[in-house]
Amino acid sequence: MNFIKKLEHIQKKNSSLLCVGLDPSLARLPESCRAQSQPFLAFNRALIDATADLVCAYKPQIAHYAAVGAEMELLSTINYIHEKYPDIPVILDAKRGDIGSTAEKYAIESFVRYQADAVTVNPYLGGDSLEPFLKYREKGVVILCRTSNPGGSDLQGLEVDGEPLYLKLAELAAVSWNENHNILLVVGATCPAELARVREKVGDIPLLVPGIGAQGGDLAAVMQAGLDRHGAGLVINSSRGIIYADSGEGFAEAARQAALELRDAINSHR
Amino acid sequence: MNFIKKLEHIQKKNSSLLCVGLDPSLARLPESCRAQSQPFLAFNRALIDATADLVCAYKPQIAHYAAVGAEMELLSTINYIHEKYPDIPVILDAKRGDIGSTAEKYAIESFVRYQADAVTVNPYLGGDSLEPFLKYREKGVVILCRTSNPGGSDLQGLEVDGEPLYLKLAELAAVSWNENHNILLVVGATCPAELARVREKVGDIPLLVPGIGAQGGDLAAVMQAGLDRHGAGLVINSSRGIIYADSGEGFAEAARQAALELRDAINSHR
Repeated sequence: MNFIKKLEHIQKKNSSLLCVGLDPSLARLPESCRAQSQPFLAFNRALIDATADLVCAYKPQIAHYAAVGAEMELLSTINYIHEKYPDIPVILDAKRGDIGSTAEKYAIESFVRYQADAVTVNPYLGGDSLEPFLKYREKGVVILCRTSNPGGSDLQGLEVDGEPLYLKLAELAAVSWNENHNILLVVGATCPAELARVREKVGDIPLLVPGIGAQGGDLAAVMQAGLDRHGAGLVINSSRGIIYADSGEGFAEAARQAALELRDAINSHR
Repeated sequence: MNFIKKLEHIQKKNSSLLCVGLDPSLARLPESCRAQSQPFLAFNRALIDATADLVCAYKPQIAHYAAVGAEMELLSTINYIHEKYPDIPVILDAKRGDIGSTAEKYAIESFVRYQADAVTVNPYLGGDSLEPFLKYREKGVVILCRTSNPGGSDLQGLEVDGEPLYLKLAELAAVSWNENHNILLVVGATCPAELARVREKVGDIPLLVPGIGAQGGDLAAVMQAGLDRHGAGLVINSSRGIIYADSGEGFAEAARQAALELRDAINSHR
């Protein structure tokens, strides 16, 4: 089953557009996890078990693992999801981007080594830099389009032929690059008007939306701006707001509660 | 010593603007390396020992290691250079890019975990996404500017205020982001006229130029277009043309010969 079908399937099954970011930092883990030989894995397993009926995807951010040499814990986390909850796709948040044979290696990293169902990529190097990812037809390729950080406009907001660069990128992705129907786009939550312009440009291409919760986007406006014609087509990511909902030993139960509330809040706007 | 000073020092000491890319692929290694428990490390050590008096930097491309779980061999390669040839800086070619706390983690990956002297980064997310790297004042931050792949123009070539995006980026990097004087830019070798426009825009900021050798750029034109006012300011990278100069057991000696020829050819145009 291709990634977008897999995503649609679990979105229906779990009545959820919520994606939980698995971005552990050692200093923020509860003592019981830090005491384990694989603290990130212990933390993630508890979070996954507590939320698996409430989410449409998990999104581990690879830098959190790479910074401390925890590649094995990342791999074990992804394996754990595949084995125990095979319906739930894993989006590896890596924001890779390179050309030619090096891009091939990055695609192997994401799809073969880590067995991710989808990966985030950076489009600055152009369409042919994405081909080595896109040719994995059953995998999802989540292209950075519009980010909501203060400097996001430095390049993305520059005007090209009367419209901002990120809309030009959205058009390229939707019209020129999506032959295998496996593209998604990342669009931040902090400016719903921009999200609406991207949605208008790309039809029903799913949008991954970070910035709800810790980064403070307005959920109602995001939903109104981003839903596709079928009242879906969004993957709303929250990381810290869920995984650190409680900093102590009640973290998993607190994560479940936070995920439940956010899932239901999302659904109340569909 | 900051990265750019370190680079200038070794460029003078070794009379060299040549950077060798350490991008091993298992299938292309000679049998004697493949037989080792750490084949990439064995290959790299031989290449390094054969070329250390001829180069101004080594540039391992991280995807080649990450694709096969060889992080330890990457780390050992960098350690080997630091210990045996402490004058030669290591540029980790990772093309990272993310925002906020995640960008911090990527900077830790490059500068703390791997102890690289510089790292390549992707600017699509804007100036604040680069700050977590730039604040390591003694490290180099090598920003993708203009790449020479066929799709390089998809975004980089779009016209913004009458000039291509990559020149806008070059200006941002030189004028707004370079407070710590630790920025370099990546500019491909295949279009010297574009290289000249970047050089004109950025003064003496060093340019990392891939695409000589295997990718076929014209060396004389590149040198004329890219040299700074002091007849330097370039880091000319070659990977496959050097490391695979001979596919058999004579690989290290062949690499030395190829590096010597390319170094001298570069110098003949200074």
